[in-house]
Amino acid sequence: MPDSVTVPIHQDKLLLSEIKSPDDLKKLSIAELQRLAEECRNEVINLVAENGGHFASTLGVVELTVALHHVYNSPHDKIIWDVGHQAYVHKILTGRRERMHTNRQYGGLAGFPKISESPYDAFGTGHASTSISAAAGIAAARDLSGSGEKVIAVIGDGSMTGGMAFEAMNHLGDLKSDVLVILNDNQMAISPSTGGLKTHLINITLNKAYNKTRKFIWNSISLLNNEFGDAAKNAVRKLEDGFKAAFTPGAFFEALGLRYFGPIDGHNMEQLVKALREIQELPHPKLLHIVTKKGKGFKPAEDNQSKWHAHSGGFDRITGITPKTDGKPQPPKYQEVFGEALVELAMKDARITAITAAMPSGTSLDLFQNALPNRFYDVGIAEAHAVTFAAGQATKGFLPVCAIYSTFLQRAYDQIIHDVAQQNLHVVFAIDRAGLVGEDGPTHHGSFDLSYLHAVPNLTVMVPADEQELRDMLYTALYEINGPVAIRYPRGNGNGIELRKTFTPVETGKGVLLREGSEIALLSAGPLTGMALDVADTLQKEGLNVSVANMRFLKPVDTALIEKLAGCSTHFAVIEENSVIGGMASAVIDCLNEKGIARPVLKIGLPDRFITHGSMTELYRETGMNAEAVLKKIRAFYSGSTM
Amino acid sequence: MPDSVTVPIHQDKLLLSEIKSPDDLKKLSIAELQRLAEECRNEVINLVAENGGHFASTLGVVELTVALHHVYNSPHDKIIWDVGHQAYVHKILTGRRERMHTNRQYGGLAGFPKISESPYDAFGTGHASTSISAAAGIAAARDLSGSGEKVIAVIGDGSMTGGMAFEAMNHLGDLKSDVLVILNDNQMAISPSTGGLKTHLINITLNKAYNKTRKFIWNSISLLNNEFGDAAKNAVRKLEDGFKAAFTPGAFFEALGLRYFGPIDGHNMEQLVKALREIQELPHPKLLHIVTKKGKGFKPAEDNQSKWHAHSGGFDRITGITPKTDGKPQPPKYQEVFGEALVELAMKDARITAITAAMPSGTSLDLFQNALPNRFYDVGIAEAHAVTFAAGQATKGFLPVCAIYSTFLQRAYDQIIHDVAQQNLHVVFAIDRAGLVGEDGPTHHGSFDLSYLHAVPNLTVMVPADEQELRDMLYTALYEINGPVAIRYPRGNGNGIELRKTFTPVETGKGVLLREGSEIALLSAGPLTGMALDVADTLQKEGLNVSVANMRFLKPVDTALIEKLAGCSTHFAVIEENSVIGGMASAVIDCLNEKGIARPVLKIGLPDRFITHGSMTELYRETGMNAEAVLKKIRAFYSGSTM
Repeated sequence: MPDSVTVPIHQDKLLLSEIKSPDDLKKLSIAELQRLAEECRNEVINLVAENGGHFASTLGVVELTVALHHVYNSPHDKIIWDVGHQAYVHKILTGRRERMHTNRQYGGLAGFPKISESPYDAFGTGHASTSISAAAGIAAARDLSGSGEKVIAVIGDGSMTGGMAFEAMNHLGDLKSDVLVILNDNQMAISPSTGGLKTHLINITLNKAYNKTRKFIWNSISLLNNEFGDAAKNAVRKLEDGFKAAFTPGAFFEALGLRYFGPIDGHNMEQLVKALREIQELPHPKLLHIVTKKGKGFKPAEDNQSKWHAHSGGFDRITGITPKTDGKPQPPKYQEVFGEALVELAMKDARITAITAAMPSGTSLDLFQNALPNRFYDVGIAEAHAVTFAAGQATKGFLPVCAIYSTFLQRAYDQIIHDVAQQNLHVVFAIDRAGLVGEDGPTHHGSFDLSYLHAVPNLTVMVPADEQELRDMLYTALYEINGPVAIRYPRGNGNGIELRKTFTPVETGKGVLLREGSEIALLSAGPLTGMALDVADTLQKEGLNVSVANMRFLKPVDTALIEKLAGCSTHFAVIEENSVIGGMASAVIDCLNEKGIARPVLKIGLPDRFITHGSMTELYRETGMNAEAVLKKIRAFYSGSTM
Repeated sequence: MPDSVTVPIHQDKLLLSEIKSPDDLKKLSIAELQRLAEECRNEVINLVAENGGHFASTLGVVELTVALHHVYNSPHDKIIWDVGHQAYVHKILTGRRERMHTNRQYGGLAGFPKISESPYDAFGTGHASTSISAAAGIAAARDLSGSGEKVIAVIGDGSMTGGMAFEAMNHLGDLKSDVLVILNDNQMAISPSTGGLKTHLINITLNKAYNKTRKFIWNSISLLNNEFGDAAKNAVRKLEDGFKAAFTPGAFFEALGLRYFGPIDGHNMEQLVKALREIQELPHPKLLHIVTKKGKGFKPAEDNQSKWHAHSGGFDRITGITPKTDGKPQPPKYQEVFGEALVELAMKDARITAITAAMPSGTSLDLFQNALPNRFYDVGIAEAHAVTFAAGQATKGFLPVCAIYSTFLQRAYDQIIHDVAQQNLHVVFAIDRAGLVGEDGPTHHGSFDLSYLHAVPNLTVMVPADEQELRDMLYTALYEINGPVAIRYPRGNGNGIELRKTFTPVETGKGVLLREGSEIALLSAGPLTGMALDVADTLQKEGLNVSVANMRFLKPVDTALIEKLAGCSTHFAVIEENSVIGGMASAVIDCLNEKGIARPVLKIGLPDRFITHGSMTELYRETGMNAEAVLKKIRAFYSGSTM
């Protein structure tokens, strides 16, 4: 049996089964807390083995979660989990154990803390680096109201690379409010974390420069003390004090005004509880540095942390092996097609660089990283910097490709406008996870990129309908357009069409008429084009003559095609996996208006609300975007009964 | 004569007149460089006294600019000025002296560095905290291409509070690229800068803890050395080394992987040139900390740095006194009305807090700061943190009002969506500088907020037409709406209407029909409503019957009013000071489409390009948004000749 697998615990003796709320942790001994932690770890492994979910990060904070709920009084005290998928044990201990099997499922628990789900969830945290800001706000409110609760932010070293975390600590140093920041340092975010700060933390925890020098100096001081007696004692004592004060391992945090404590072993319950108790009553900002192992207690995850960051479930609880599926080969993912195409192009063009904000494997830029490491940049969870860094490279004639998820690119909106578009720099934005993403839910859906990019001057915005177009559009973005370009494509598999070996440029601003008809013009942006064609088939059988166009470009939109379609159609419908406000439908309606053509336009897209989590099938149903719902809408629209 | 006024220099002897390019600085002696700096300072004071402009920040970096162009070889070497209004002397020395009198004027030089204006401007910098990212990108490109130039980012301590600067330094520590960051530390951004880091820097520069302890310890060490001779020497030497390494004043920067140098006097030419030369060839990231005085050499600006951050010109060059104008009282500014109304409401409601990102005077939140300091928060140049900090306060039942300029709020787009709107928290966004801002130009126009906020679920977006509505909408936002609310209003004076003492709530989602007509419906969002009424008057005289509606709400838009107007009008025109893409016109066209009403809509707004700098009059003319142009457009639109 692998040494890190936890000892089997008999279900009938579970401490966990007696925990109804965090109150029940208060009376437990250190040994019991440690046992409870093991039970929780076991439960999480079983849970994810069966149902999937984020994984490794939760396993790293099992002991911390138990210790926090032992020492603090949640929900009065506020615990904020930075990137909340580390909060599974928190959910288990705060009355949601029985519902954990519904985690990330439609109608079930969210994969992240959620204010509306539980009073124990002080703040929703799907994006990184927000926790200290939220904690500072809550603490400032507490200071005004005198409500007296403690505020704790738990943040990983990956999230610590986000500028927002720095902004918050800098402000906290000014506020001097009682906030405890717990730095959960596993030297990994999703991938190995990046940056100078990482090295600083590693230096501390590896005890290299720090402990070695410290030990040497302490020895020297005591040597001097012993050797030269009282004569030197006084001077040396003062020297020692000055030295101690200056030689703090957490100089970075101390400089911002947070008192630094640590590092301590984040899997040692006794140390954790002791440290938390000791600093609990210090009335100012402070940071406790704990060192943990991502995936702790599950050997396969300890060994390959990136791979086990999240898992879709269905693996062996001991070995981590996922049983072979029915063997049907899946079509390649958009991500893979993108990553491979970029490497292919970059092998022939030394100007191409690739930039990711801590998502090399998620974006498949790890292919680039392996093939061309010197032109690959992982900047950390730092989307704003990523974009302006790309802009800097573009001023030198390089061709930077910045691959960022749609929802995270919101972090760099100003940099897209101010640093790239305004200077008309040739930066290519590969916008991954555009549209619905499924189980990660509202914090991760890419619902808004077409809307927020639409008004940006100089920007070209492309939407491939399949993986072949993604390849061709990447080529077009690099070689046919001289200025900022965005290509937005979804999470997951393409439709499996055979890919051309060569690249064929896509004509800028031109869509494709896939099916010529009359009566209804169905205009589509993105992979839902396939569904649009099916819908057109069905309508055809019902006697409705339908055109289908793949619009390809949001900006510039193909006004000639729209005009042409208006020539033969009385009704328009636009299909896009983006908010119905401001995206492709808007572009089409605007164009018709500008041309003075009166045609009713049915908008089929994401409704103007935040969309919950669940499987794609469920979410398409919920948003009225599956073929069945679309057919119904179009029929009603054409018959004039409703839009 | 005030002691800081520079000695008059005779025009005929000016060194400056011999400087055609930075090459001409290479051969100058330190004394000559110092004299040149004084001449530049004089020139800037004269320039701003006459023409206005940003001011105090440039005066602080006169010596640095001269020293940089003496030591480095621009444009081969790249100098990036963070928030480029400190770059006036840079512009003077790089061939633009003769055109400096056109600074910030329509068709003239830009107030910021601009790639398209000069090869000496390596990167455009209107927003703060971007310079290190751009420098890192340029340096990474250089490392790939072997082009060998030096890259320098000059950044103020204010800009250093922006998270992007941290992200960039953290990445730079990882890249290990040769970049020189010059921290221009005047302990002020526009207002006194904020945060724990500031205290760290002050501690260094005031030499308190640092120099005192250091001196004491050095003395102790040499005492020990002398007293105990060779016996202790070795141990002490090693102790000293370890101590030196650890006891670095720039521990914060060193932790990120930048070697720290300084602090040095940023007005001492000899020290500057020496320091720049010494570290010039170090092949890794490094930071030189210089201490300067904002407004240096102009006494009134030294004494009141916030006031003299920028000036509209027309002041006495010695005393700084602006001659009295014709005495006509100006209508109050939107900013003032906002600031006063918020104080008025907050005096009666302890839940209201006010948050600014380093713009207390620009937003008039300084009124709040003075009246209710304990509920006022200046978070530094940290918009992202500001918004999530507000969200944290809102979870505790407080009513945070976050006042941020439209263009800078782009920095917090993700936080608006993820931290506020998604949790439906009651945060009020007071969006200042919405629409054109005049002389600051494209980096500062608030052209996109209606577009980027439109698709955000749960958000209410209001647009006051005058200062009375601003007051009432602020009240409405606080007391009639429970969720995120944005109010966007422009820079500058209101129309001077007499303000009601009381607050009257505005009905959510309802516009006002100001003038009932037929034929043409003119729908307006914001202060251009006054112009719309004038236009309607003129058209009336020409026999065109015009309705005018003040829409008030972008979201939810008043669909009933639009329907009503469609009942009597054949043509619609929408006026808004925002991009024509995605804002109020879009909302109106969408609404007509949804109701199945076919009416052509003329969009009058900012065209889909970046708008240059200049006076508001010139910019309204350039964008076709003055009464004359609007009349012309509407006539042509109605007669069907063109949109």
